[in-house]
Amino acid sequence: MLKFSDRAQGLPASPIRKLVPFAEAAKDRGTNVFHLNIGQPDIETPPQFFEAIINSNMKVLAYSHSAGIESLREQIAAYYQRLGHSIDQGQVLVTTGASEALSFVFTALMNPGDEVIVPEPFYANYLSFALGKDGVIVPVTSSIEEDFALPPVEAFEAKITSKTRAILICNPGNPTGVLYPREALEKLAEIAKKHDLFLIADEVYREFAYDSNEHHSTLGLSGIEDNVIVIDSISKRFSACGARIGCIVTRNAELMQMVLKMAQARLSPPSFGQLGAEAVYQLPQSYYDGMVQEYASRRDLLKASLDQIEGVVCPEVNGAFYAMVRLPVANSEDFCQWMLEEFSYEGSTVMMAPGAGFYATPGNGNDEVRIAYVLNCEDLKKAMECLKHGLIAYANRQA
Amino acid sequence: MLKFSDRAQGLPASPIRKLVPFAEAAKDRGTNVFHLNIGQPDIETPPQFFEAIINSNMKVLAYSHSAGIESLREQIAAYYQRLGHSIDQGQVLVTTGASEALSFVFTALMNPGDEVIVPEPFYANYLSFALGKDGVIVPVTSSIEEDFALPPVEAFEAKITSKTRAILICNPGNPTGVLYPREALEKLAEIAKKHDLFLIADEVYREFAYDSNEHHSTLGLSGIEDNVIVIDSISKRFSACGARIGCIVTRNAELMQMVLKMAQARLSPPSFGQLGAEAVYQLPQSYYDGMVQEYASRRDLLKASLDQIEGVVCPEVNGAFYAMVRLPVANSEDFCQWMLEEFSYEGSTVMMAPGAGFYATPGNGNDEVRIAYVLNCEDLKKAMECLKHGLIAYANRQA
Repeated sequence: MLKFSDRAQGLPASPIRKLVPFAEAAKDRGTNVFHLNIGQPDIETPPQFFEAIINSNMKVLAYSHSAGIESLREQIAAYYQRLGHSIDQGQVLVTTGASEALSFVFTALMNPGDEVIVPEPFYANYLSFALGKDGVIVPVTSSIEEDFALPPVEAFEAKITSKTRAILICNPGNPTGVLYPREALEKLAEIAKKHDLFLIADEVYREFAYDSNEHHSTLGLSGIEDNVIVIDSISKRFSACGARIGCIVTRNAELMQMVLKMAQARLSPPSFGQLGAEAVYQLPQSYYDGMVQEYASRRDLLKASLDQIEGVVCPEVNGAFYAMVRLPVANSEDFCQWMLEEFSYEGSTVMMAPGAGFYATPGNGNDEVRIAYVLNCEDLKKAMECLKHGLIAYANRQA
Repeated sequence: MLKFSDRAQGLPASPIRKLVPFAEAAKDRGTNVFHLNIGQPDIETPPQFFEAIINSNMKVLAYSHSAGIESLREQIAAYYQRLGHSIDQGQVLVTTGASEALSFVFTALMNPGDEVIVPEPFYANYLSFALGKDGVIVPVTSSIEEDFALPPVEAFEAKITSKTRAILICNPGNPTGVLYPREALEKLAEIAKKHDLFLIADEVYREFAYDSNEHHSTLGLSGIEDNVIVIDSISKRFSACGARIGCIVTRNAELMQMVLKMAQARLSPPSFGQLGAEAVYQLPQSYYDGMVQEYASRRDLLKASLDQIEGVVCPEVNGAFYAMVRLPVANSEDFCQWMLEEFSYEGSTVMMAPGAGFYATPGNGNDEVRIAYVLNCEDLKKAMECLKHGLIAYANRQA
């Protein structure tokens, strides 16, 4: 019999995608599906992105530099400099999305069995990327009651073993929408430094900080320059998910050398996405302001709508475009599937991502869902109305 | 001290890229460098590729299906059907280049320490991809005297252990230019079947078969449908290296399910490359004929030129666009570096890939180089002239 690897057999199904067949069946029945399950923004990609590609007048679509086109790396470095961080283009390696960036970093840090500590709930694919290297994600649980605030450093320290290689955070948080205050990051930096751990920060939602909340990058932490690895992406910032352009940013030259070898083995990141990225990284601050304002309005609407539904707990959401929400159901996966299979309200239903897939601790998140507010306010309002009626119908069905 | 994984510390430098700094220095001195080191075709990408992208009129650059846009998968399946293979779109998974395809397949098959048997010399990045999964490449040596023909199956069988998971071939061969006859493939298939091994075939150079030689795909082998995994790419076929579009083709549904999970974790392949690929997969046979004719002329010129240089051994080359050539030098890496650092002829020098990096057996390939004939005949002629004079000067320098 043909044999597969243990890691491949253990790969979890994506919580974002596993219900897709039910959504497709719903659409086949003529039901409109509001997609709140995946972080695919509806916002238009800046026209400058497409113009750069159309005007490139390329004849031969060649490999680029393995670390990314140099002029793009310069634009990315200039972007971090504008944010106040001393980063040069040699400290930036362009990857095929943040996915590849994470995959390279895990390959660089983890021997089989090695551990990375991550506050849960976390971006579900961290699990797959770690498992792909036979690595282990060790969760530190944050709670909805505390708006998914960073757990105290003691909780992290309690999980550190001889196999721990890094602490990984996502800030602003997917799936939680949490923004970590500077003091919390400084405490985390302290224990990373003390225990010789890398501090990996997934900051792909950096600009998505609402109200008067400020995003603090790990690039701004002093004294642990060698430990910090930032994972970044243009997917959300420029609504360019299909470009597959991300990057690794680090001042650790040894790490950069290793990931460059991985980058050379896979030859180069996609050329078109790089061309477009170079253009949009030059957009003025006003571009971000408009986008953030739009998402803030959606966040307001979402929170206000959810707060009115009985039994629903929506924490404070200050960043990114997700909320991890508690529903009055015992099994949110069953509920999400039921919404797609059995329910519609005024011809529509809602697709959400079941919460358990965002936790590594078995049993956690069973009554939670992740909601991505990537629809315009009008649709989002209808989706919330639909969810409200769905919860009532689901409860009555069980009774 | 911060720790890195063993695999990252063991990653080899790419034989194709390691001399790049010397090439850049040569250019800085005003020397023209003929790039025969990397398989980057100079042929223009078909205009239909760019037109499809320009005409797409996209507003939101969204994630595509994780397995690739369905209409692209249909075109790819149709392409295999035209070649006589019963493949449907569910048996095709679009990847970010053949690089990702290989990486996914190795992840699916190899536990740490597991082995894949590969005839050497082989595409150097196989080593990096295997090492990235803590897997082991076990070489079976082929020889320049026999034009790098597939070694007898007994040589493969002798290497099979309880840890062997697959046999991997590249056909037509990079770096050898060898085309395997059908009978040799059938014998290989027999032992793959007998020992329950996957047979992975990297067929990205499928169309590059010269003279009356025919390419035989592993997809056409009967009785081992479940064992065969084809790795493919549009990079060479359509001169679209920067698109980063490849695919995995297999009739093994269980494998397909596993790689789909990996594909979902990294979200999707690049959207622009997929749009272009869908257009060029619809090109008529005449497109391939013209391209293959051009490369056949280059091959003729290369072989004739090399045969005239004293001490050089150029084997028969029937496919792909590489030749693994023996030079009258003890250390081809030293020679290649010297060509870039110390030598020029009529203002030019030649960059080649040192041979040792294409072997896993230490000591093999030290007097060989890989030459990629990706220049037009005029430049190729000049490059060969330059190489001839370089070899003489290098010999005199040593005397």
